[in-house]
Amino acid sequence: MSQLLKQRVRYAPYLKKLKQPEELVPLFKDGQYIGWSGFTGVGAPKVIPDAIADHVEKNNLQGKLQFNLFVGASAGPEESRWATNSMIRKRAPHQVGKPISAAINDGRTLFFDKHLSMFPQDLTYGFYTKDRNDGKILDYSIIEATAIKEDGSIVPGPSVGGSPEFISVSDKVIIELNTATPSFEGLHDIDMPVNPPFRKPYPYTSPSDKSGLDSIPVDPERVIAIVESTVKDKVPPNTPSDAKSRAIAGHLVEFFEDEVKHGRLPENLHPLQSGIGNIANAVIEGLTGASFKHLTVWTEVLQDSFLDLFENGSLDYATSTSIRLTEKGFEKFFNNWDDYSKKLCLRSQVVSNNPEIIRRLGVIAMNTPVEFDIYAHANSTNVSGSKMLHGIGGSADFLRNAKLSIMHAPSARPTKTDPTGISTVVPFASHVDQTEHDLDVLVTEQGLADVRGLAPRERARVIIEKCAHPDYKDSLKEYLERAEFYAKQKKCLHEPHMLKNAFKFHLNLAEKGTMKVDKWD
Amino acid sequence: MSQLLKQRVRYAPYLKKLKQPEELVPLFKDGQYIGWSGFTGVGAPKVIPDAIADHVEKNNLQGKLQFNLFVGASAGPEESRWATNSMIRKRAPHQVGKPISAAINDGRTLFFDKHLSMFPQDLTYGFYTKDRNDGKILDYSIIEATAIKEDGSIVPGPSVGGSPEFISVSDKVIIELNTATPSFEGLHDIDMPVNPPFRKPYPYTSPSDKSGLDSIPVDPERVIAIVESTVKDKVPPNTPSDAKSRAIAGHLVEFFEDEVKHGRLPENLHPLQSGIGNIANAVIEGLTGASFKHLTVWTEVLQDSFLDLFENGSLDYATSTSIRLTEKGFEKFFNNWDDYSKKLCLRSQVVSNNPEIIRRLGVIAMNTPVEFDIYAHANSTNVSGSKMLHGIGGSADFLRNAKLSIMHAPSARPTKTDPTGISTVVPFASHVDQTEHDLDVLVTEQGLADVRGLAPRERARVIIEKCAHPDYKDSLKEYLERAEFYAKQKKCLHEPHMLKNAFKFHLNLAEKGTMKVDKWD
Repeated sequence: MSQLLKQRVRYAPYLKKLKQPEELVPLFKDGQYIGWSGFTGVGAPKVIPDAIADHVEKNNLQGKLQFNLFVGASAGPEESRWATNSMIRKRAPHQVGKPISAAINDGRTLFFDKHLSMFPQDLTYGFYTKDRNDGKILDYSIIEATAIKEDGSIVPGPSVGGSPEFISVSDKVIIELNTATPSFEGLHDIDMPVNPPFRKPYPYTSPSDKSGLDSIPVDPERVIAIVESTVKDKVPPNTPSDAKSRAIAGHLVEFFEDEVKHGRLPENLHPLQSGIGNIANAVIEGLTGASFKHLTVWTEVLQDSFLDLFENGSLDYATSTSIRLTEKGFEKFFNNWDDYSKKLCLRSQVVSNNPEIIRRLGVIAMNTPVEFDIYAHANSTNVSGSKMLHGIGGSADFLRNAKLSIMHAPSARPTKTDPTGISTVVPFASHVDQTEHDLDVLVTEQGLADVRGLAPRERARVIIEKCAHPDYKDSLKEYLERAEFYAKQKKCLHEPHMLKNAFKFHLNLAEKGTMKVDKWD
Repeated sequence: MSQLLKQRVRYAPYLKKLKQPEELVPLFKDGQYIGWSGFTGVGAPKVIPDAIADHVEKNNLQGKLQFNLFVGASAGPEESRWATNSMIRKRAPHQVGKPISAAINDGRTLFFDKHLSMFPQDLTYGFYTKDRNDGKILDYSIIEATAIKEDGSIVPGPSVGGSPEFISVSDKVIIELNTATPSFEGLHDIDMPVNPPFRKPYPYTSPSDKSGLDSIPVDPERVIAIVESTVKDKVPPNTPSDAKSRAIAGHLVEFFEDEVKHGRLPENLHPLQSGIGNIANAVIEGLTGASFKHLTVWTEVLQDSFLDLFENGSLDYATSTSIRLTEKGFEKFFNNWDDYSKKLCLRSQVVSNNPEIIRRLGVIAMNTPVEFDIYAHANSTNVSGSKMLHGIGGSADFLRNAKLSIMHAPSARPTKTDPTGISTVVPFASHVDQTEHDLDVLVTEQGLADVRGLAPRERARVIIEKCAHPDYKDSLKEYLERAEFYAKQKKCLHEPHMLKNAFKFHLNLAEKGTMKVDKWD
């Protein structure tokens, strides 16, 4: 038992339950329902999942020892190892990792997807385990902690995610105490789940409001083991911004300035939500360079770029359910702990993504889709309608409820044979996750389409004109005009489509490696 | 000036502004932005819209005197008259009336659609009038009232809708005081709009909680005229339930009983939301016959069927933004005013449809779609993808946030040549308003598909098996199996589709008058 572990575990009875990960392997049986802590690749358990994977590999149990696995959002590389070994029978909600999407797309893993604000609550309702005969919901939750308080409650690490809900409906709880990272004590604000008809309003009216609970309560009797982990989170380096993402950021900053000028946004904007990826980073960089002051952030995940926004004095407060920093980012973070811990707070994903608070605060939401169509429906999940990428995540929690709902993407992406073979703007989204009733602004490096208050046919013209890549503009215009021609005859001019050609871009891509169609016919 | 009017208007200065509707006609100029009270066909202004329509008809101004018209949801037959006379250049959000959808679908009216909880707030943000040069939002609001209080505030009639927001951003306000109906004073609970960053939580934790404001405050200076109206609301008789809708209700009642049995719903269920139409009526009838007691309702519109639920003692409290009763229903209602006014309350649509409260209360939401697909995406708005019916209404406000999100429809509908020519279950919804991440249960007279926790391919099997009409089962199964065959080769088995055939049902319908396809190829 390390000195550090003894220091961190301030509830002595847990120390008697200290185990080696290998000792716990026999607990895990085929078909069990397991909850993991973790969100966007940080704060997930590591050493126990690895011990179970070792067991599977050593004994050739691939496809024979399988679990129904629930993680708030994505876990770390240990989950990918489970997927490689066909250990995940069923999985929900959001996931990241090529081996995991490979298992979903080749049929080894059944994946169901749900808004991140809803998944944990629906789990506690028993909706996802209604076919169990024993009345249980989760058999085990494996929760990474960075400290244990005197009452046995759990201080999470860099993410809260669905842990409060998992713990509340778990038959047994296992703690991985991570001593490779400093303790995150003081950074969390925890709301434990309350189900209807007993729910009260969330009292938060600004990103810095807190409930006062800084750890996750747990009945110590249900904690059956504690394991020390010395494995750090591995966050890949951030994708740097490039000319395109900087152009997108430029359009957005200009748009925000114009909204402020016209009195539709206050000078410090409203709390920002921003996704992951190089465009999101470029937008935050763009804001760092702009003149906005006293910004706040209400989002699901914070990345390194937000630290810069703090450093230059533009950002007053940020809250999320996960702080996903690179090793260098965490170093900077802990070196300035006194400062950051006053300006930052991590909540459960049910709270960070809650429609109630997102709508109340008037959040400005920005996310990247796979594609969007001329009428402003967006695909966030399934490439060409069928192939799962990561999942809906929190995109729809934010985009449905934000004051300004923004999607940004490059106007075209390359295929093997055509540098602009994939158009982001398509006639008909091959999978719809965000509807035309949800989106206000669409941006590519080509320009910004502000579609607020526009009827579908007006919207289509603005989106094609402002957002489409020049290689696709004429083709999209022709689709629209032909669709209108037929719709006029049939008196269905509200949202004209040629259903026979609606997916011709996608079919052409599958057959010829490019969305550039020869003719519409 | 009628005695009744004098009695109802308790703020004397308004009586000096009493006008005949014809006198107001010159105020209305081409291109203005107008807000009307009204929701689901009740509580809308009548005599002023009719006077303007008279003027247009007499002077052949069809298409020359046009307005941007905003109504909380649908108004009465006066709006249809405006549409017939091409007086509506732009319209949002939900509308009902064949002349209105005809004007939208033949291109005379530009219609944009928004969730009913969001439309009024986005209007107050200035989002829909950002291209005006004069900084105004609405030129006039025409608001039906049934009384005026001593402070000049407005007591609405049978609906609140978007009136609080319209009034708050209207340059000038005109009141139609309806003396043909009794006063509704005491039935309303009004929240006036507060915009970010100043919003507080809505304090309601049960359907009967009230804020205390029983009329809509208005600056009397902005009220430029008051007109007496003696025109009653005209609500068509309710579509009676039939064998199919009763079968749907039967499946649902059985499902609720089973949820109670398994502890996933309390014995009095949770607050119910139910739409309009014969299925909704059958469901409420079904509940009337079932053994549930102490039910509550949190919905957007109440119909006659709810009175029965009150009468048999099953229903404790109901709240909505509109009470859309038939003449007979209103008679019964006013005859039992003392009783009903204690058990009923009307709120603004921003509140009745608010995600915050719907999610907090754990509402059970039930709505009827145009169609849904094998993966549980639903089309609520556009027939065959293009032809606007009524609009999204509040369906997505409720279905995204409810504890149980249910859609019900007959499994097939007739065409001219085929009594089952239209299948409700299709391979790919031709317009997506509700996504697969939103729906829990789908019901037709054939059966009930509980898709909670199911991956898309599991979901498809259950939906086809339980919900599809026998005439379409084999065809849908074959689509799924063929899609899986190709998806297996291409490793995109998450949500298999044949994009080339995704809309074959719809194309076949357009060409041959039936969705029954000969073969998939």
